[in-house]
Amino acid sequence: MNYDQVFDQAIERLHAEGRYRVFIDILRNKGAYPNARCFAGHNGPKPITVWCSNDYLAMGQHPKVIAAMEEALHNVGAGSGGTRNIGGNTHYHIELEHELADLHGKENALLFTSGYVSNDATLSTLARLLPGCVIFSDELNHASMIAGIRNSGCEKKVFRHNDLEHLEELLAETDPDLPKLIAFESVYSMDGDVAPIHAICDLADKYNAITYLDEVHAVGMYGKRGGGISERDDAASRLTIIEGTLGKAFGVMGGYIAADQRIIDCIRSYAPGFIFTTSLSPVLVAGVLAAVKHLKGSSAERDGQQAAAATLKTMFREAGLPVMDSTTHIVPLMVGDPVRAKKISDILLAEYGVYVQPINFPTVPRGTERLRFTPGPAHTEAMMRELTEALVEIWDRLEMRLAA
Amino acid sequence: MNYDQVFDQAIERLHAEGRYRVFIDILRNKGAYPNARCFAGHNGPKPITVWCSNDYLAMGQHPKVIAAMEEALHNVGAGSGGTRNIGGNTHYHIELEHELADLHGKENALLFTSGYVSNDATLSTLARLLPGCVIFSDELNHASMIAGIRNSGCEKKVFRHNDLEHLEELLAETDPDLPKLIAFESVYSMDGDVAPIHAICDLADKYNAITYLDEVHAVGMYGKRGGGISERDDAASRLTIIEGTLGKAFGVMGGYIAADQRIIDCIRSYAPGFIFTTSLSPVLVAGVLAAVKHLKGSSAERDGQQAAAATLKTMFREAGLPVMDSTTHIVPLMVGDPVRAKKISDILLAEYGVYVQPINFPTVPRGTERLRFTPGPAHTEAMMRELTEALVEIWDRLEMRLAA
Repeated sequence: MNYDQVFDQAIERLHAEGRYRVFIDILRNKGAYPNARCFAGHNGPKPITVWCSNDYLAMGQHPKVIAAMEEALHNVGAGSGGTRNIGGNTHYHIELEHELADLHGKENALLFTSGYVSNDATLSTLARLLPGCVIFSDELNHASMIAGIRNSGCEKKVFRHNDLEHLEELLAETDPDLPKLIAFESVYSMDGDVAPIHAICDLADKYNAITYLDEVHAVGMYGKRGGGISERDDAASRLTIIEGTLGKAFGVMGGYIAADQRIIDCIRSYAPGFIFTTSLSPVLVAGVLAAVKHLKGSSAERDGQQAAAATLKTMFREAGLPVMDSTTHIVPLMVGDPVRAKKISDILLAEYGVYVQPINFPTVPRGTERLRFTPGPAHTEAMMRELTEALVEIWDRLEMRLAA
Repeated sequence: MNYDQVFDQAIERLHAEGRYRVFIDILRNKGAYPNARCFAGHNGPKPITVWCSNDYLAMGQHPKVIAAMEEALHNVGAGSGGTRNIGGNTHYHIELEHELADLHGKENALLFTSGYVSNDATLSTLARLLPGCVIFSDELNHASMIAGIRNSGCEKKVFRHNDLEHLEELLAETDPDLPKLIAFESVYSMDGDVAPIHAICDLADKYNAITYLDEVHAVGMYGKRGGGISERDDAASRLTIIEGTLGKAFGVMGGYIAADQRIIDCIRSYAPGFIFTTSLSPVLVAGVLAAVKHLKGSSAERDGQQAAAATLKTMFREAGLPVMDSTTHIVPLMVGDPVRAKKISDILLAEYGVYVQPINFPTVPRGTERLRFTPGPAHTEAMMRELTEALVEIWDRLEMRLAA
């Protein structure tokens, strides 16, 4: 057994497929979003424009968020010092859970150290509490939901993406007496399309299933108070569990679920991924509190983001660039090849100061490699024009086809 | 299928066993550690002394840590805005990884959002990269290691705690051609005892196994520069992977591994729990950087902690309290019953302003429920005397036996 050789071969496979990942070394400039500094491969930092951040509304640089974090830092210090049960349960955590429960109209909420952990811990624990549970999972569900489902050890039935007929077929063929859980997302982050929440809830009602909705790419951005697509579509009360993140539109870090008190209490009491980990730093929690409260009352950021996304899609389409059919704030451009996607990204960074990461397998299926742009309220029309012109030039240089 | 009933019954089981957890609502007072404010069940916050924090050296309130976090907050903002691969790789992250690699004398390091995730993601991914891998796991390993091992799908062989003969027996009976991984901890956090690292590495050499050492309750606190028990025992170079936390002695939040470049590159490239999650906030990373650098050069905190632990153990022992046989900074007091452990904890908080959480199953085996004290450099002898007197009074009140 030669361990080094096995590990070397694993890395070699990535190089051979053209999907070895190189992390770009950046620092954002607070107050000047989407501007940042890039360190890799240059002499000293070089100014760039970030086009692929999930800090969708620039709340990570909002004065209220910064002020709240600074205050908490000086009030209680850096970390929580323990798990939620052993010394790490602060007043900030409890207040944020109430705020998030209110955002989704649920009885309570529960914080996790990340959205990944909230999906993994909740799904695996829920299903273990329901003996014989069958999980119905959208084929494009995020890796963290897939991990949670696999780690639950349950039977899993995967339905074709947003395909209600297929979902019903799978529900109908399953023993009516078994517990059933339908797990899906509202906004699918790599395609930018949206799930038919009410129709899925209708099926859940018909077949006595509970529902789990991942809203990480929607909370803060949809609905009158930022409650996500479930708020926009007036469907929150029909969902058993809504899961969200604190690291994208809310600009900081962490994840959560909102649900009935009894479910929150079960996950709180039985999920190893919740129990056995140091709780979120109170500094982060204070920042999120400010972000959630602000976005409950302000739609300016949401409106600005939607306007920016519409403008960029139009510019791409008019230039003949292969923009995908997104109905949300996400603007994906299909490339279809990992080497080429990386090449375009490299040219954009080196020659145009544009930072957009190529998206390769396993984040998207092989053959659907793409560039994924996330314009926000702070991206100007001038930036979008420059970006579009750069892309057209590169498409031409690499002899790729533009639409007529 | 009545879902509500299943969830209600799950909660009912916890109440029936006396291990339903109630989180104590506190805020620490920056600069006055171990003092804090407690909110639960009182009119307004009540001052308390924290005795169960894992911010072992009070680094979460160290002026250098606070200053570094404040600076980062104003430099780059609240969150990273993305995964390490997509927009969330900052200069801070890279610098901290170099600092941690240096701390353990390894080629590189890799950050995770928590110690839990670093164990789960690394162990499950490593074992999947090594087909047929057999994992040898100490029976007292932390829940996060158990999760990673289970999620790897590998064969697992559990050896009795710190029992070299049993470990060798299991190694010897296993096919010599199969990959083997020995997973263990340096300081076991609930008992406070230490693993024989060199002897385990001898067995690993003899049977061609790789080693994985969890040092979360040791980094920052042992070794000349805070490199953990593996530094103290001059064993770091013999270990394949060293895992640590940023949320205990370093006072902030997050986890990491340190290892050869090829292993770091494999985990970085293949672990879903690393890839698909928003990276640590740069504010946290900046704080940890300051803590690690400080503790590399200063032993005053370590010396203060060891002195405090020795004093408290002596006081407990002289008072006849059932202090367990810990050889480290952890001071556990055996109770052996979940209801009684909670009762003692409740009296301490309500009547004496002492906060120490009862430790129940599943954190420790049933029948070994305990109180776990973590005195640090800021706990004074006067505090320890008051604590000891309070415990003796409660032991008497509850008609529990003191040693002669």
